Amino acid sequence: MIAVRKLKPAPGLEMTETEIPKIGPDDVLVKVKACSLCGTDVHIYKWDAPWDTRVKPPRTLGHEVCGDIVEIGKNVTSFSVGDYVSAESHIADWKCFQCRIGNQHVCLNMKLLGVDVDGAFAEYVSLPEANLWKNPKNMPPEVATLQESLGNSVYTVYSGDIVGKTVTVFGLGPTGQFAIGLARVAGATKIIAIGGTKLHLDVAKKMGADVLINRHEEDVVKRIMDETDGIGSDVLLEMSGSPEAINQGLKSLRRGGRVTLLGLPSEDVKLNWSSDVVLKEAHINGIWGRKMFDTWIITSRLLGSGRLDITPIITHKLKLKDYDKAIELAASGQAGKVVMFP
Amino acid sequence: MIAVRKLKPAPGLEMTETEIPKIGPDDVLVKVKACSLCGTDVHIYKWDAPWDTRVKPPRTLGHEVCGDIVEIGKNVTSFSVGDYVSAESHIADWKCFQCRIGNQHVCLNMKLLGVDVDGAFAEYVSLPEANLWKNPKNMPPEVATLQESLGNSVYTVYSGDIVGKTVTVFGLGPTGQFAIGLARVAGATKIIAIGGTKLHLDVAKKMGADVLINRHEEDVVKRIMDETDGIGSDVLLEMSGSPEAINQGLKSLRRGGRVTLLGLPSEDVKLNWSSDVVLKEAHINGIWGRKMFDTWIITSRLLGSGRLDITPIITHKLKLKDYDKAIELAASGQAGKVVMFP
Amino acid sequence: MIAVRKLKPAPGLEMTETEIPKIGPDDVLVKVKACSLCGTDVHIYKWDAPWDTRVKPPRTLGHEVCGDIVEIGKNVTSFSVGDYVSAESHIADWKCFQCRIGNQHVCLNMKLLGVDVDGAFAEYVSLPEANLWKNPKNMPPEVATLQESLGNSVYTVYSGDIVGKTVTVFGLGPTGQFAIGLARVAGATKIIAIGGTKLHLDVAKKMGADVLINRHEEDVVKRIMDETDGIGSDVLLEMSGSPEAINQGLKSLRRGGRVTLLGLPSEDVKLNWSSDVVLKEAHINGIWGRKMFDTWIITSRLLGSGRLDITPIITHKLKLKDYDKAIELAASGQAGKVVMFP
Amino acid sequence: MIAVRKLKPAPGLEMTETEIPKIGPDDVLVKVKACSLCGTDVHIYKWDAPWDTRVKPPRTLGHEVCGDIVEIGKNVTSFSVGDYVSAESHIADWKCFQCRIGNQHVCLNMKLLGVDVDGAFAEYVSLPEANLWKNPKNMPPEVATLQESLGNSVYTVYSGDIVGKTVTVFGLGPTGQFAIGLARVAGATKIIAIGGTKLHLDVAKKMGADVLINRHEEDVVKRIMDETDGIGSDVLLEMSGSPEAINQGLKSLRRGGRVTLLGLPSEDVKLNWSSDVVLKEAHINGIWGRKMFDTWIITSRLLGSGRLDITPIITHKLKLKDYDKAIELAASGQAGKVVMFP
Repeated sequence: MIAVRKLKPAPGLEMTETEIPKIGPDDVLVKVKACSLCGTDVHIYKWDAPWDTRVKPPRTLGHEVCGDIVEIGKNVTSFSVGDYVSAESHIADWKCFQCRIGNQHVCLNMKLLGVDVDGAFAEYVSLPEANLWKNPKNMPPEVATLQESLGNSVYTVYSGDIVGKTVTVFGLGPTGQFAIGLARVAGATKIIAIGGTKLHLDVAKKMGADVLINRHEEDVVKRIMDETDGIGSDVLLEMSGSPEAINQGLKSLRRGGRVTLLGLPSEDVKLNWSSDVVLKEAHINGIWGRKMFDTWIITSRLLGSGRLDITPIITHKLKLKDYDKAIELAASGQAGKVVMFP
Repeated sequence: MIAVRKLKPAPGLEMTETEIPKIGPDDVLVKVKACSLCGTDVHIYKWDAPWDTRVKPPRTLGHEVCGDIVEIGKNVTSFSVGDYVSAESHIADWKCFQCRIGNQHVCLNMKLLGVDVDGAFAEYVSLPEANLWKNPKNMPPEVATLQESLGNSVYTVYSGDIVGKTVTVFGLGPTGQFAIGLARVAGATKIIAIGGTKLHLDVAKKMGADVLINRHEEDVVKRIMDETDGIGSDVLLEMSGSPEAINQGLKSLRRGGRVTLLGLPSEDVKLNWSSDVVLKEAHINGIWGRKMFDTWIITSRLLGSGRLDITPIITHKLKLKDYDKAIELAASGQAGKVVMFP
Repeated sequence: MIAVRKLKPAPGLEMTETEIPKIGPDDVLVKVKACSLCGTDVHIYKWDAPWDTRVKPPRTLGHEVCGDIVEIGKNVTSFSVGDYVSAESHIADWKCFQCRIGNQHVCLNMKLLGVDVDGAFAEYVSLPEANLWKNPKNMPPEVATLQESLGNSVYTVYSGDIVGKTVTVFGLGPTGQFAIGLARVAGATKIIAIGGTKLHLDVAKKMGADVLINRHEEDVVKRIMDETDGIGSDVLLEMSGSPEAINQGLKSLRRGGRVTLLGLPSEDVKLNWSSDVVLKEAHINGIWGRKMFDTWIITSRLLGSGRLDITPIITHKLKLKDYDKAIELAASGQAGKVVMFP
Repeated sequence: MIAVRKLKPAPGLEMTETEIPKIGPDDVLVKVKACSLCGTDVHIYKWDAPWDTRVKPPRTLGHEVCGDIVEIGKNVTSFSVGDYVSAESHIADWKCFQCRIGNQHVCLNMKLLGVDVDGAFAEYVSLPEANLWKNPKNMPPEVATLQESLGNSVYTVYSGDIVGKTVTVFGLGPTGQFAIGLARVAGATKIIAIGGTKLHLDVAKKMGADVLINRHEEDVVKRIMDETDGIGSDVLLEMSGSPEAINQGLKSLRRGGRVTLLGLPSEDVKLNWSSDVVLKEAHINGIWGRKMFDTWIITSRLLGSGRLDITPIITHKLKLKDYDKAIELAASGQAGKVVMFP
């Protein structure tokens, strides 16, 4: 089969012919219908830290995927050949301390699809039964492949109350745009989007933002305080990873407000801890991945019921063979989600 | 001024001339713009227990209201003459054990507006500052007066997670119809409405129900199980007070599901406690009134932001002088909410 | 090996020679150090419904157990020969809807040890790796075998806040006595035990109860209200399964209080639903089994740290060959926990 | 009467004769039995920022107090002359946005006793009825006065689950020592105290710490990881305000652990936000004051029931006239709580 692989410990990727994966007794073989790009793929392409030491070539990339099951291992009982599935990309051991208290998503021995094992930028991918999610037949492949990525935002936005809340969303890449849509369908009553380009703010408006702030053109904290009668936001969704945004978000949060963090700063963050965290009674929680499978149920139902429409965020659909262009688009900061088809 | 009052300990109400209320130092005087009817008003009209022993005539009825402040007591600091307000109808003492742990809504010494003190079916009403809620100027009076009643449903629906849930709503009077709308705007992905008349089911559809069940025509439990792949609903909102509905709702609830109760049975309820509550790991919570003022904030924001439209539930608007017809409509079971204007 | 088995579909049990279990690739073989009796064992002995249709003889009974691993299946990676373990008795499929949302304890396809598969009243027992819990070497076998049973009470008592609370415990069998000890070590500040015999009330006092009520000698509701300044208890732990206790417990609960249910009534329960559940804003939750493995961690740590001493509840230690006497003791209502040694 | 007052905008305090406070209609006059010192008093004594701009001399200091009511205002209904009370020191307006959602402890218009209004280092103090807490008659005054301060720790320790948890406590001043005692009585199964002096670690042991770490002598993070099988602590209670401790505490926290913050750094804090907060799924919450009056109920019950003994933390009892020595002791870092008697 054809696969997009990292063949050498160096920048770049190659499309090569390789063998269809052999599956184990607890795995299934999936014929890929669609796969999609994430920032991690871009970093591995560029051979950035910490991926340059973690990924061991040769390795097929890709962890966002949907497709049809074409073969099942002998222990597989809850899925069948012909099922249309997506994949949770975090492969837990289901045995460690964290797995035993229901935190499989932070398994102490976790493997990542397309990083530690061969992934889905290919015609076929092998997946453990425990990582499968069954899709409704009528879900378009370009949507079904995005559930893993959307799930990060689902877990972020719904990790606390959202209905009737004033919410700030910092960072308008795909996870931030998803967050706006998710806040909207769950009854947030004032959604304030903070971004840096007209393009991003236009998409935010389409997704349901009520207030748009261009961080280059306005005093972000002042505007949020004005929009909240001087009290501050109830909920801060931090999707940017920018130290400046984290500080602005905390300063414009009301006392006792919620802060949920998905964005990953690449450097240390400096805070006025006393005023902006302790005395503010901020409730901060970090997010890693998705809850297995609480997050998937909500994600799947929101899409399947038609409550949530994420198509404004799917800006590009390409052939898998155009992976170089796909990577370039994803790296540009101008694209939303980029979906590829084998 | 003109007021609709219970003058004798007997069925019926009378419209009479009475004095404009004198306000105390912590109260305001409100000129009524709209008031609305609740089941309690019908019971007091009919002089049913337990109201026949609690209400002490002469008493002006009415606890759902909005209007403009025309006078303020000397200790009032957070509201001004001219403010357009609605009223929380439960008058707490703010001093008892429950008030001191943030449960003012179940104050041990609670007085009820229009029951224990003179109410709002009148041209003017005296209200404690602590019971006021300020409305946006552009909120229509027929909506603003319904916030107290809508608040019961807000507290019910949002007393647990709702986004991505399959929800059954038993009882399609106004509180049930509100609940459907509230579940819809907060992201419930399958809303199953169970009612007894085509009229009620039609309104339920307008409010956002996905599945309509006429309890006279179908096996309610079987249908819910079919709609949920045999697993049962995630959330049961019990708005009917029918012992049969309570049993059906529990039997069609999934293990670990939530049950929130607003409906008040007039008789004892018999349950298969072992199967339907204990082993089912049901999470049941009762509702009384509204949280002061968490509930009001959400209610006001959902209406003010335009997220929630309750106008399909306002079926009748009358003059206050037509209170007899209003009571008749409310008692008929055919009306939604009945609003009156002085 | 020797095992205590149900050989015919009729009352009684027999001790017979049988083969040491063969283990599968995901299982381990455990040499039993101690096993203990639960009410279910008594019911199966007596051949009561629903066990008379569920249990398929021949079947080795017993689901409370500890022992040493003497053999491991080829897929077992987190336990080794020589490990000293106890067993979660609920065998989940880890694949169904409930398992996928972290509710393995209410798995839709659950099998019970000693009921649906051969159990632990024997010299050896086969157990799935996923059901094992590793014990500290110095935990006495008569304590280690009780963790499954104690776990029910751990899950019950700690399914809501307990520190600083006034708690009523109805039913002073082993689960109720465990509950008293657990409430005490977690900071409940007034523990009211309601029982029917002097023996039970004496043990309750040893476990940490502050107030003892003999339900045959006092007005239970009145006494609880007196002990709580007329407000009612904060938390009701219902361990009796008695419809009368459920009613008394609800009537003596404060508004907004918590009710957690472990006791299983054998008949329907009739309640004043409006007053005692809805308007009271009761928060009721049912309990089935133990959370895997959140409950086990707490149970193990409380025992291992010496914070909790359950020895007053272990009233009898016998040889496995005296199983008839053990059953008789457990059925008498006079014993605490009865532990047996092969 | 005699009072200890800041008479000039400069370091120091003076004991002077002043008038007994006149009380308003909603206030009571309390004859002080005991008062106690807090770090804030030391800062005001030294005339440190931000207190040098907030305190307006002349001002009587002191916000930790207990005493007997000797006079009540005309609107006071829930307390009587002769009641033995302590005081919540945060005077809320009960009208602002935060007060209306049950967050009186972060009132937007809060006044502080002994800072913004005259305090309790005096023979008499005027207190609003809404700030009173009634004590059992047999509670010693040196304990009753400490409830305000203890309450900070109660709110901190119990703002999440504690039973069965491994807990680190950073900072062994009085709030840290209280935290250890509170964790112990609520069932924390491994309490790790991190301090800097033998004296502090000795008191920590008396209060119930299981593991003592002298931060000058050990690698704090390594030791905590060793004590937790390499997984990290479940709960971090940060009572020190040291940026180094915050970093060590986060690095030794398990994924998904809780962090509750009472300590106030005097400078900005720099963190590895990605690893130690976001990817760690830390749940961080800041603490300000005490919940009115949820915190007080628990505090009062733990002391009144005898479950918690805080006497090891009361290291000094002095006459009010020896306030200079009291301040010196409190500033030394060697004392626990210092109580004074008029």
